[in-house]
Amino acid sequence: MSSPSRPDGDPAADPLPEDGGLLAPVRAGSAAEEATADTSWLGAMLDAEAALTRAQADLGLAPVAAADAVAEAAAAHPRDGAAVRALALRARSGGNPVIPLVASLAEAVSGRDPEAAAWVHRGATSQDIMDTAAMLVASRALEPALADLSVTAGILGRLAAAHRDIPMPGRTLTQHAVPTTFGLKAAGWRSLVLDAHDRLAAVRSALPVQLGGAAGTLAAFHTLAAQSPAPGPRAATAGPSPDAPATGADPGTALLAAYAARTGLAEPVLPWHTLRTPVADLAGALAFTAGALGKFAADVLVLTRTETGEVTEGAGGGSSAMPHKSNPVRATLIAATARQVPALAAVLYGSLAAEDERPAGAWHAEWQPLREALRLVGGAARDAAGLAGGLRVHPERMRANLAVTGGLVTSERLVAALTPLTGRGEARAAVTRAARRAAEEGTGLAEALGAEPALDGLMSPERLAALLDPAGYRGSAGALTDRALRRPVPSAQNSTTSEEETPR
Amino acid sequence: MSSPSRPDGDPAADPLPEDGGLLAPVRAGSAAEEATADTSWLGAMLDAEAALTRAQADLGLAPVAAADAVAEAAAAHPRDGAAVRALALRARSGGNPVIPLVASLAEAVSGRDPEAAAWVHRGATSQDIMDTAAMLVASRALEPALADLSVTAGILGRLAAAHRDIPMPGRTLTQHAVPTTFGLKAAGWRSLVLDAHDRLAAVRSALPVQLGGAAGTLAAFHTLAAQSPAPGPRAATAGPSPDAPATGADPGTALLAAYAARTGLAEPVLPWHTLRTPVADLAGALAFTAGALGKFAADVLVLTRTETGEVTEGAGGGSSAMPHKSNPVRATLIAATARQVPALAAVLYGSLAAEDERPAGAWHAEWQPLREALRLVGGAARDAAGLAGGLRVHPERMRANLAVTGGLVTSERLVAALTPLTGRGEARAAVTRAARRAAEEGTGLAEALGAEPALDGLMSPERLAALLDPAGYRGSAGALTDRALRRPVPSAQNSTTSEEETPR
Amino acid sequence: MSSPSRPDGDPAADPLPEDGGLLAPVRAGSAAEEATADTSWLGAMLDAEAALTRAQADLGLAPVAAADAVAEAAAAHPRDGAAVRALALRARSGGNPVIPLVASLAEAVSGRDPEAAAWVHRGATSQDIMDTAAMLVASRALEPALADLSVTAGILGRLAAAHRDIPMPGRTLTQHAVPTTFGLKAAGWRSLVLDAHDRLAAVRSALPVQLGGAAGTLAAFHTLAAQSPAPGPRAATAGPSPDAPATGADPGTALLAAYAARTGLAEPVLPWHTLRTPVADLAGALAFTAGALGKFAADVLVLTRTETGEVTEGAGGGSSAMPHKSNPVRATLIAATARQVPALAAVLYGSLAAEDERPAGAWHAEWQPLREALRLVGGAARDAAGLAGGLRVHPERMRANLAVTGGLVTSERLVAALTPLTGRGEARAAVTRAARRAAEEGTGLAEALGAEPALDGLMSPERLAALLDPAGYRGSAGALTDRALRRPVPSAQNSTTSEEETPR
Amino acid sequence: MSSPSRPDGDPAADPLPEDGGLLAPVRAGSAAEEATADTSWLGAMLDAEAALTRAQADLGLAPVAAADAVAEAAAAHPRDGAAVRALALRARSGGNPVIPLVASLAEAVSGRDPEAAAWVHRGATSQDIMDTAAMLVASRALEPALADLSVTAGILGRLAAAHRDIPMPGRTLTQHAVPTTFGLKAAGWRSLVLDAHDRLAAVRSALPVQLGGAAGTLAAFHTLAAQSPAPGPRAATAGPSPDAPATGADPGTALLAAYAARTGLAEPVLPWHTLRTPVADLAGALAFTAGALGKFAADVLVLTRTETGEVTEGAGGGSSAMPHKSNPVRATLIAATARQVPALAAVLYGSLAAEDERPAGAWHAEWQPLREALRLVGGAARDAAGLAGGLRVHPERMRANLAVTGGLVTSERLVAALTPLTGRGEARAAVTRAARRAAEEGTGLAEALGAEPALDGLMSPERLAALLDPAGYRGSAGALTDRALRRPVPSAQNSTTSEEETPR
Repeated sequence: MSSPSRPDGDPAADPLPEDGGLLAPVRAGSAAEEATADTSWLGAMLDAEAALTRAQADLGLAPVAAADAVAEAAAAHPRDGAAVRALALRARSGGNPVIPLVASLAEAVSGRDPEAAAWVHRGATSQDIMDTAAMLVASRALEPALADLSVTAGILGRLAAAHRDIPMPGRTLTQHAVPTTFGLKAAGWRSLVLDAHDRLAAVRSALPVQLGGAAGTLAAFHTLAAQSPAPGPRAATAGPSPDAPATGADPGTALLAAYAARTGLAEPVLPWHTLRTPVADLAGALAFTAGALGKFAADVLVLTRTETGEVTEGAGGGSSAMPHKSNPVRATLIAATARQVPALAAVLYGSLAAEDERPAGAWHAEWQPLREALRLVGGAARDAAGLAGGLRVHPERMRANLAVTGGLVTSERLVAALTPLTGRGEARAAVTRAARRAAEEGTGLAEALGAEPALDGLMSPERLAALLDPAGYRGSAGALTDRALRRPVPSAQNSTTSEEETPR
Repeated sequence: MSSPSRPDGDPAADPLPEDGGLLAPVRAGSAAEEATADTSWLGAMLDAEAALTRAQADLGLAPVAAADAVAEAAAAHPRDGAAVRALALRARSGGNPVIPLVASLAEAVSGRDPEAAAWVHRGATSQDIMDTAAMLVASRALEPALADLSVTAGILGRLAAAHRDIPMPGRTLTQHAVPTTFGLKAAGWRSLVLDAHDRLAAVRSALPVQLGGAAGTLAAFHTLAAQSPAPGPRAATAGPSPDAPATGADPGTALLAAYAARTGLAEPVLPWHTLRTPVADLAGALAFTAGALGKFAADVLVLTRTETGEVTEGAGGGSSAMPHKSNPVRATLIAATARQVPALAAVLYGSLAAEDERPAGAWHAEWQPLREALRLVGGAARDAAGLAGGLRVHPERMRANLAVTGGLVTSERLVAALTPLTGRGEARAAVTRAARRAAEEGTGLAEALGAEPALDGLMSPERLAALLDPAGYRGSAGALTDRALRRPVPSAQNSTTSEEETPR
Repeated sequence: MSSPSRPDGDPAADPLPEDGGLLAPVRAGSAAEEATADTSWLGAMLDAEAALTRAQADLGLAPVAAADAVAEAAAAHPRDGAAVRALALRARSGGNPVIPLVASLAEAVSGRDPEAAAWVHRGATSQDIMDTAAMLVASRALEPALADLSVTAGILGRLAAAHRDIPMPGRTLTQHAVPTTFGLKAAGWRSLVLDAHDRLAAVRSALPVQLGGAAGTLAAFHTLAAQSPAPGPRAATAGPSPDAPATGADPGTALLAAYAARTGLAEPVLPWHTLRTPVADLAGALAFTAGALGKFAADVLVLTRTETGEVTEGAGGGSSAMPHKSNPVRATLIAATARQVPALAAVLYGSLAAEDERPAGAWHAEWQPLREALRLVGGAARDAAGLAGGLRVHPERMRANLAVTGGLVTSERLVAALTPLTGRGEARAAVTRAARRAAEEGTGLAEALGAEPALDGLMSPERLAALLDPAGYRGSAGALTDRALRRPVPSAQNSTTSEEETPR
Repeated sequence: MSSPSRPDGDPAADPLPEDGGLLAPVRAGSAAEEATADTSWLGAMLDAEAALTRAQADLGLAPVAAADAVAEAAAAHPRDGAAVRALALRARSGGNPVIPLVASLAEAVSGRDPEAAAWVHRGATSQDIMDTAAMLVASRALEPALADLSVTAGILGRLAAAHRDIPMPGRTLTQHAVPTTFGLKAAGWRSLVLDAHDRLAAVRSALPVQLGGAAGTLAAFHTLAAQSPAPGPRAATAGPSPDAPATGADPGTALLAAYAARTGLAEPVLPWHTLRTPVADLAGALAFTAGALGKFAADVLVLTRTETGEVTEGAGGGSSAMPHKSNPVRATLIAATARQVPALAAVLYGSLAAEDERPAGAWHAEWQPLREALRLVGGAARDAAGLAGGLRVHPERMRANLAVTGGLVTSERLVAALTPLTGRGEARAAVTRAARRAAEEGTGLAEALGAEPALDGLMSPERLAALLDPAGYRGSAGALTDRALRRPVPSAQNSTTSEEETPR
């Protein structure tokens, strides 16, 4: 019985269902998008296959000529959209794309060196290659993301320093509370961005290679070693990792170390087919980063509201219908990212509970959410750098907004100052009465307080005016900003931009 | 300050980051994948633009010639991967792809009829087009999914009927409990599949067109109407929907009705830019379907375990390393889907809380999760049809497995039968003692019971044997199967397969 | 080896770890909280046990005296916190609270009628009782929630009617776009509230009883029937459900019908131990409702911001530090609910994929999320009624805010009006130039337009002023409000309040 | 208009809606449950208030006598269920329980020392207390959880060592693949448990105090300092933290340091009202732990299945209906936890995107999910210790299961061994043919291979038998187990059990 839906047809006849980013402007054209594209994933799988045979040759388990042939064939293997599509369709029969890739690569190797074809994927399981490729992709996608976070932190640090003492309304539960400063706000954003950088960088530095063979025991490599001549001099140079047993006698763990060295990834203590710490750690760091940038975006969105207008996105997005509009597009796209990544992370955390030596579903459920989280976060990091870099700050609107409550934004201070004079209860009551009267009569709070009998003669008009000045009620905002800015910004590796921060 | 990550460059120079399904075998090559591809989404946006001008012409708000020109330009507009990519990159400045699409379409119209260009997207906002396109895409993607669910239900119904009375171990908390039948199990799967079909079909039939203009008041169309000659005869034929006010005088609601008619979508009572019932309903129905199919897959996965072996996937997936393996690949891919879709639905439900007339982020966060849920579920429905169609059932293994506890699977019945003779407490105690002895001594339960003094002479060996026969303890399994199979399977529309079910 | 953490000790010695709502003000003191408390759950389990024996007596499967004894013991069984706690601790050994409850209830029955004790829980499995109790709890918790939604919809309808034509800024992506009306906004909120009501009410009306016995075949009841005298006259009156087979011969399905009748719940076609449609449907409807109310709250939160001030919460929440603050507390608590329930629903949808006849984990994972979702949504519905009922609307602030962009909020209309006179390109350009000049020079848009040479003499100042009046650019807002208000509000069952809506 | 649902009534008249763990057996009676109960949360809030005044006295900002009075009143304040309930109901007006608590505490202080009442909560905002209490609760709840993880890891290490070389089927995608060992499997579980311990311990050690005042600037404390006499000698001993500015002149940051010292929590660089790194980090570590334990449980569940039977839970859970059943209850409850916590973590990650200085909803949405995640994980850690401690391993079933495929479990090795003799293609083909024949004819693979012409005379029967012996194909399982066991188990602090691990 065949399904009525479209059958798997001839790959060549299949139109390519591109996901070119039409529904994900946050990542369209970003480095993270490119690093996580199907084509890049295919490239990483080919890299993983080449490195595996190379590592076997390092230990004398495979002929160097075979490793050369595999590496050359992998390098020459098609990596474009058509190749991806053909593999994707052929992946359906076994459930993952490594199976058809091995066949395709072996055929290509065979064309170069028939003897070498047997060394393709020798002793490995699909998941060894898929997981190793995923770690390579993650590492490559996180590099520009980390650089963008560094840039963002650098810019925010300069913004915070430049506006260290600019007062603005502190807002809680949507209402003006007491003054804060733009410096402290920007320093807070920076702090979260650096926290995100720390978490992503820590995870990235520990991304491990995967190698376990069919069920995680590396057993096939023992057979291979038993059939091989004694390891030659190349093995000596590769050597086991420091964590490995002192004896190089175990060919499985020796190969694990050699494979890690060849891929540049970390050597795991155990094969991790169903010990998914690396993926779960990525999930957490990515969800954290999305949320951290989401805080920056959430603040920009409320501050840019038409009635508030304290900051503006540099470029702003146009509207086809309304020529006057300038939308906070970068902040919007970051906010949309922050809504999506926690759910993707939940799927990845859920896949920790993977049964057996290799699971039926938990692993397969990771691929798309991991890729999506990587490229969304990478895109959001790019947009955060753009948002920070283009942010226009309007101190005059902050000043004006501080005044809209007629001085109520300093009522906390006023009560505190009056308390020694009248007792706390009366101080609160008098300020509340005056505030109500000011609101009803549209006068300022100073005037209403002047008319408050309970306060008569207790305080000079000058003292009252000083107490009502928001700029005089910034508390530790400056000191907090300074100490937050002392935290250094990691340099953006491989960045062409010098982003040294120079807080004053 | 520019970001260190890759800048938005010339679209033409950009390699296309394909998402060709390499990481999602469940949907690779499926009709749902094609229906939800970026290229299809672009097509739906073009359809939406064409229908909008057409509807305006229907009401005399736009010249028929302009509607023709827009329709022709939309039909001729590139819809391939390169067009998608160019729009995706240009979508970054305004945050959605409709803005550049309007520019591109207007330019194309202008080449045909300069006068007509002004009628492209006239009075609409980006979200009108994007939401309408999303509903068109959802409708198109759900059609094959619904057909596949019908097919699956049909097959499962026949399986249930054919194996109505085949006993197998009923398992609870991983342990054999009492017997059930494969008929009842398959009838349960079918029941969930039909529930999923019901929910998806109900949502699909109500998918609404979107039209509100800049802020949901349809105001621009009033201006347009004021500038237009009185509606001509074409308007009369379109007419307002039955839900609309008796007076056709409101040009906004009249256009809403005409637009719905032109797209084939339902007419909403209100523009729903931030009243996201349609998207939330899709979320629920899609999560339901993923879970319903996930139950089917979960059962197949436990039943196919090597030690159990009661069913086998027809094709099974091969392994590059182990020639003997036949993996339950279809079930695995469905299980992976069931792990992902609830999280995507959570994002969509979260987007109900969208502020203002059009939100900054909540809407943008819907696009990718909605598409992903549609294509995952569509793919899983296809695989469920394949899984059901190819499922091989092994009654002999079921029988063998029923015996592995040496008769304990009927202990509930035994206790019940002994209770009138010995009292319940003694009945339980005697069976428990015998069961323990049977397990320790490796004998059958019948033998151990025969040696139980408390039961001496209470029951003939024949009666005991009958009580221990699992096939005699199926309870209402047959009756339940029958009543479940009486529920009809909706015909698979546009399916070439006749799937009429003939339960007895 | 004992765990270092606190051992399961003597229940009596255990301090009761109350969850009295300290961390969930949204539901503290609500009817939904009470209906879903552990004590209520215990009550529902006792109700389920009593109804089960009663239904068996209805069919002649159990003595009426036994049913009386069970019902009396269940009614008299402790249902307070101490009873809950003792059961909760004893639930650990078997993994669910029904096992110790059956022991406790049987003991109590035994004290009344030793013969009757054997009829407690006869033939049932724990999940039969737990699921039936969950459906009873859900039904009871949803009743006040539905009433609160009706009340909310009624109030919002009156608000919409009363403010049908009050203009306010329509906001998109945080920026003023074109005018809308408060009437349309409130009508939109009402529409979502009614959608939520529809979905919850539909699910509530279909909540099914659960009965399947050990593995869903109802087999134990066949043994019971075989041991019973022929069903007496009581059975005839209970009868099978209309959906059941014409023959009353199957004692399992007959009991299912009788049990449904005794509990007032619906009769399912199949036992649903691992066919979790009812729970998944609850998940969807609850997530929908949380999100629908979350939209209302999200709008209130932006409209109450200090700079905007278009609405105020009636009561408002105080602040210990700042006497002037009036926080939008109800909206805040609803918004917090909308952030939580979709994730809880994702857990419930995930539990659809439950293996075997009764699963090891998927079922257990439902209990707490289902309860939490029910009480959060019930609390949010109560707060939505309070929020709507106390909402103060400030048309004068809306008017003032419409003016803050100096007329730009009608720029869309202006361009449309100028287009016939100047062409669309020039119209956009002229308005954009004027808008920029108005912003830079702080003048109004009217003045800036007057100084625009391209428009010289094209339009009278009166015409210009009319075009710039936001109140004249409401489009279909009124007509849309009217048609939305035509949708009736379901009467709040068991409500003492008459909430008939009288839209004009 | 009043809501039809139950009004907020007199607290005293309210029945207490206990959550005594009836729906959450995994945490019923656990130390984590007690540490996170409402009563404990209330206690932590009182501790936070007392410590705040104490810290102010340390710096000379408050009289020592006032600090004494506050501390004494806090210690004497009711902390039972009734107190919780009264506060919970009064929390509704302001949206959080600190507001009524401050009133209640101030009243109590006033009874002791009327002067001192003014020093309650002086300068703080509700969130300062709530967040500090949350960190105290988290710290207290994690202590036993960490101890239980240590115990679990210790037991698993001993299990792994004891069964280092016991072969069992390695299973992938539900099917037997190649052999593995129980030692390696247990070492893998232990590895994940240690990863979880690392992550939770790292987060716990950094949990920060919260203090920011109304909007995070600590401004009120500046007013307080200005009104105080110069800091006395006590201040000198408290001192600023090393991270603080060299000058002790800033009273806000000085108080932050003193407060941290008084609570035993870490000093944050910035107030973190909307910089939610600590909560997000808890989310990640808790989701990780739930998943890590979920892997252990998932494996136990598949291994205990009736047909597999390789391990058994020590106690096992009974069944009311079936005397023979022994359910894997601990594993079931852990599995249920692993399904819930990732979703709760997603809510917490989502709350990172919190607008303003204190948000309207994002913060309130954290409380219940954080508490639930803490107590679920704490309970699961306890159950993991119990599960590990009671696990019975059945090597004989492992051996028997290795045989059920008639030797196919070593087919990978066989192909590898034959490849040098026949070429790889022929080796695979011959083994596949023999495997098929063995399956069809029910013979063993050895016999079928003997009848394979292509292999005639290539291999002695002894060699063939050796190749088919699963125990001889364990690869690096032993070496991997050894290296994994070298990782030390952190000592369980405050544990009465000595859990020193002595791997061989």
